Amino acid sequence: MSENNERAYPVPSIRRLPLYLSFLRQLRDEKVEVVSSTRIAEELRLTGIQVRKDLAMTGIVGRPKIGHSINELIGHIECFLGWNEPRLTFLVGVGHLGTALLGYKGFEQENLNIVASFDNSPEKIGTTILGRPTYDLKDFAKKAQEMNVKCAILAVPAMYAQETANMMIEAGIQGIWNFAPVQLFVPEDVVVENVFLSSSLAALSQRMAFQARKNEI
Amino acid sequence: MSENNERAYPVPSIRRLPLYLSFLRQLRDEKVEVVSSTRIAEELRLTGIQVRKDLAMTGIVGRPKIGHSINELIGHIECFLGWNEPRLTFLVGVGHLGTALLGYKGFEQENLNIVASFDNSPEKIGTTILGRPTYDLKDFAKKAQEMNVKCAILAVPAMYAQETANMMIEAGIQGIWNFAPVQLFVPEDVVVENVFLSSSLAALSQRMAFQARKNEI
Repeated sequence: MSENNERAYPVPSIRRLPLYLSFLRQLRDEKVEVVSSTRIAEELRLTGIQVRKDLAMTGIVGRPKIGHSINELIGHIECFLGWNEPRLTFLVGVGHLGTALLGYKGFEQENLNIVASFDNSPEKIGTTILGRPTYDLKDFAKKAQEMNVKCAILAVPAMYAQETANMMIEAGIQGIWNFAPVQLFVPEDVVVENVFLSSSLAALSQRMAFQARKNEI
Repeated sequence: MSENNERAYPVPSIRRLPLYLSFLRQLRDEKVEVVSSTRIAEELRLTGIQVRKDLAMTGIVGRPKIGHSINELIGHIECFLGWNEPRLTFLVGVGHLGTALLGYKGFEQENLNIVASFDNSPEKIGTTILGRPTYDLKDFAKKAQEMNVKCAILAVPAMYAQETANMMIEAGIQGIWNFAPVQLFVPEDVVVENVFLSSSLAALSQRMAFQARKNEI
């Protein structure tokens, strides 16, 4: 394997790819077939250079003046992200947030397939919640092995987040999508991606308060 | 008003405050009454200096050797974030994600009160979804004025995000919590905070793929 394949891609570029996808899918729905990187840049408030670099990262070859085939772009980006085939995922913690995530069908478009959820509440174990079986948290490792699941969504209360993450990692989980408002300790080879909704809300609240004070002056 | 009150606080500090809150509430539930900034730093994998700076930002005075009263810390942080009183919010777009957000009771803890939702689907208008009335999107401005709502959650499909944001801003909305995968154009005095779940998922997918390639070598 060449050294090139082992490098980490720039995270801001990675994070922009779903925004491209969303725009490209919209164009596809409108039966548009070809788009230029300039048009994409305008729509997403980016520079042409950023867009060309991001697209080049996914292996797309530039076609100046001609524009890109939209289907080809979508295929390339989905493939680059590994979203062209279903990825099995477990969800742990069927509380308010976990249930909200189970109910969110947007993940299906990204081929993220939440196949089962886990909880330790006797009232939930054995039931089917939003189409997914809820198993006893104790059976997590067994099920992860049986179904060869390597990715898990963590949606337990903050106080149980670290111990639950430890359990997941022991069960062979390699990537944790963490929605608990906790910085997790994990081994180097385990990937954690945090979504701290309350941090986002804090930023919104504070910036609104700042703006309101500015307007008062 | 002093100049001090008008400065913008550092966003990373703001984003850390909810993590402190989460840990402090956990301690309170465990009947702990006092905590040192060193203990907080250890728990959240931060430096003592970061924690002391962040807490000082909220107006908390350091108490070396004695430690902070947990109730006082919680009160200070909640007050600083404006989370000590209910903030009325509208939600626009009762699709999959919108419904998931309506169903997420975690916001109540932050005193974010989603009082109504809006959609343009005739099947949804007039119904009550998860306890909130669903109004016609056309009535947004009228309702925002009636209820004096300044903050809105945007959860419409990407292709309608910009026009919906425009409509919100015309109706006097000052802060948009945007869950649509779109960079919005807004006037300078309107605050937008983005939650791009698909960007977070892209980062997770890519970093897992990178790690897997590293492990293969």
